[in-house]
This record gives sequence, structure tokens and C-alpha cells, in this order.
Amino acid sequence: MKIGIVGGTGEIGEGLARRLSHKHEVILGSRDRDRAEETSSCTIDLLTERGCRNCSCSGGTNQDAVDGGDVVVLSIPFKHLKSTVDSLSGFEDKIIISPINPIARNDHFSYQPPSEGSAALALKAMLPETARIVVAFNNVAANKWKQLDEELEYSVAVCGDDDAAKHLVMGIVEDVSHLRAFDAGPLSMSPIIEGITPLVLNIARLNGMKDVGIQFK
Amino acid sequence: MKIGIVGGTGEIGEGLARRLSHKHEVILGSRDRDRAEETSSCTIDLLTERGCRNCSCSGGTNQDAVDGGDVVVLSIPFKHLKSTVDSLSGFEDKIIISPINPIARNDHFSYQPPSEGSAALALKAMLPETARIVVAFNNVAANKWKQLDEELEYSVAVCGDDDAAKHLVMGIVEDVSHLRAFDAGPLSMSPIIEGITPLVLNIARLNGMKDVGIQFK
Repeated sequence: MKIGIVGGTGEIGEGLARRLSHKHEVILGSRDRDRAEETSSCTIDLLTERGCRNCSCSGGTNQDAVDGGDVVVLSIPFKHLKSTVDSLSGFEDKIIISPINPIARNDHFSYQPPSEGSAALALKAMLPETARIVVAFNNVAANKWKQLDEELEYSVAVCGDDDAAKHLVMGIVEDVSHLRAFDAGPLSMSPIIEGITPLVLNIARLNGMKDVGIQFK
Repeated sequence: MKIGIVGGTGEIGEGLARRLSHKHEVILGSRDRDRAEETSSCTIDLLTERGCRNCSCSGGTNQDAVDGGDVVVLSIPFKHLKSTVDSLSGFEDKIIISPINPIARNDHFSYQPPSEGSAALALKAMLPETARIVVAFNNVAANKWKQLDEELEYSVAVCGDDDAAKHLVMGIVEDVSHLRAFDAGPLSMSPIIEGITPLVLNIARLNGMKDVGIQFK
């Protein structure tokens, strides 16, 4: 599968590239093409060193990631979502993964969704109607993504209104380390899934833990 | 500790009584005093048969549960919360545990909080200012509460604005089977914690699972 990563030089974007390039053709996008190319060749070197032979990761612009991907991950902070989406085109009929969590931090972390109810629901209002939005990867501890020696022993709640797109994304989730994908229902479940991220951030901070994630049991 | 359970003859209330009467003095309340007395003597018989010697569980009215408890669990459906609280008095200075999740079910389960933002925040508006509200026990699979042979291997997110009350409730949580309590921050985190319950109900239904709960790892 061709997977474009918009924001591919960020912490999670780069981690996703490292975790998916052994099975998929990753197109790592960035506002800065040079940086994307550097990151992608670094990803290939790293995976080759670890014994991966046919890994595939190329760098380009964010628009290249959209154009080249059958599936496009929007790995960007919520505050840059609108400006990034507005600067890109060609989302029609694509499967768009949103791992985006709108979070504020004051005394503690809190969930601060936009008026649409969640980042994913706001995204739905920005994209063409034929874009197939799927929420996934939201609650995986950010620090662990890039460290390939760390197995990701987490559950991933996946929601969306297009069942075929959702099940395809569930398959991609399960290609990553030890992640397990769970169908969590329609896109209207996205506020809860996104909200779990500030919850686990607070739990980590208040209980002396590191990199807290969740498992459904 | 004296723990009053309002709604003690419901599924979770009775389960809580069975899981706490070995360590605490439980006052099991109900609108129907006779039923509460029956349930409490049944609880004692059951625990005695399992080898528990000093278990303590008495039945009475919901008002008896409030009056007798240092800690009071409101184990009632959200739709009965306001009428129940309005019919009772004496909440001043008590620690009040809310395991309440406002959930609707149509095609799937969804979180339907009141305008205050959550059941716990609505409860805060109903109770006197000195009541110390703590959210706990929300995401434990309801069916498992009463089955004492089932260990509850779950995490419990606990939130509230009164730190002393919160930590005391965390201790009570850890007296129950294998439950582990996690400080999840202030009462404003309650919408996320309550929202996890419809999420895990959907996950159970959509992924062919039973009695799904969560663990923070």
C-alpha cells in the first residue's frame, strides 16, 4: 500500500515511517522537501542496518505525500491542521488517517476540541465529501514511536463512517509493532478517542509513569 | 471505613457491596428497604461461605446509606440522578463517588452528557458545595462486578478537585479485586472518563468481545 505522511518529519510522522516502511511504500512529506528527503534516507539506512531488505521510504513535499498515497496520514498538530489542509489539494477519494488530538496544557492537560466536536469532525468539514476519514493512532505514547527497540504493546481504537476504509486502516495499524486495532464505531466516537490522550498524559504525570498508553481487555 | 451505597440493589451497587464488605462497613441503600435488607444478608451469606469472617454489610434506605457512610457511592443510572439526589439530604462534607456514565444507545453506544459537561459536573451543581465529589469505577465492565470468581484486572481513572478525598477513594478502589487506581487529575477530566464507557461498549460489540475494560500501561 502507498502511504503518504503529511508532517512526516515530526516525531510521530517519522516514527510511523520507521514502523511502516518495511511493509508499505511510504511517501514522507514535509513543508521542507530537503528535510523530508534527509529523513527518508535516514529511515532507510536505519531499517537496512536492522536487516530490512525491501523497505521503501521516499521524501517530498506534503503535496507529494497526498498525491502519492492511497492512504494519507495527517501527522500534524491540531493548530496547523486548517492551514495545512488549505494549502493542499487532491484529497478526493483518499483514505485520510487523523491521529490528531487537540490538547491544551495549563495546570494539567485537557481536551480542547473545536466547535465541530473533535479534530476529526473539524477535518471532515475541511475536506471534500469523498475523502474517507479514519481516526487511528491517537493514544500511542509519542516518545516511543521512533524507538524501534520499544515494542508498542498498545490498543488502538479506530473509528470512521466508511467501513471499508476503517477496516483497511485497522490492517495498517496491526502492521505496526505489537499494536492491536479495535473497531470503535463511527466518526462520532472521535471526541472520546482523542480525549484519551490528555487523560493518559495526566495519568503519566500524576502517577510517576512514563509513556502511558491504553489496552482494551 | 463506612461506605454507603445509594442504589445498592442494582447490578454495580450489589457488586460493589460484595467486593468491599470484607474490608469496609458497607451500608447498602435502596428505595425499597426490604430489598436492601435481603441483598445485604445475601451478600454476607455469600462472603461467609467463601471464608470471609468479619464482613460487614447492612441494608436500609438510600437515606440510611447517605447518613451512615463517610463515603457514599451513587450507584444509579444517570436518568435517575437528579430525582434521587433531590429526594435525599445530608451530603455536606461527605465524600461522594460517582461511577455514573450518561450513555445513549441507537445504532451504537454514544456519550450523552448533560449541558454541564458530564454526570459528575451535573452532580456538582446539585450537591452542597462542601460535598467532595470523586469520579471512580466508571469503566469496569458491569457484568463482572457480581461474579466474585472473576478477578477485575482493570485500571480505574479517578478524578476530583479535592486531593485528600481523591486519594482516599484511590485506596478504596485498590481494595477491590485486582483493580488499580490512577490519579487522573481534576473533576474537569470526568467527561473523558465517563466517555470511555460507551467506547468500550462499542468495542465489545463490534469486535466480538465480552466485558471489555481498560488498562493504562
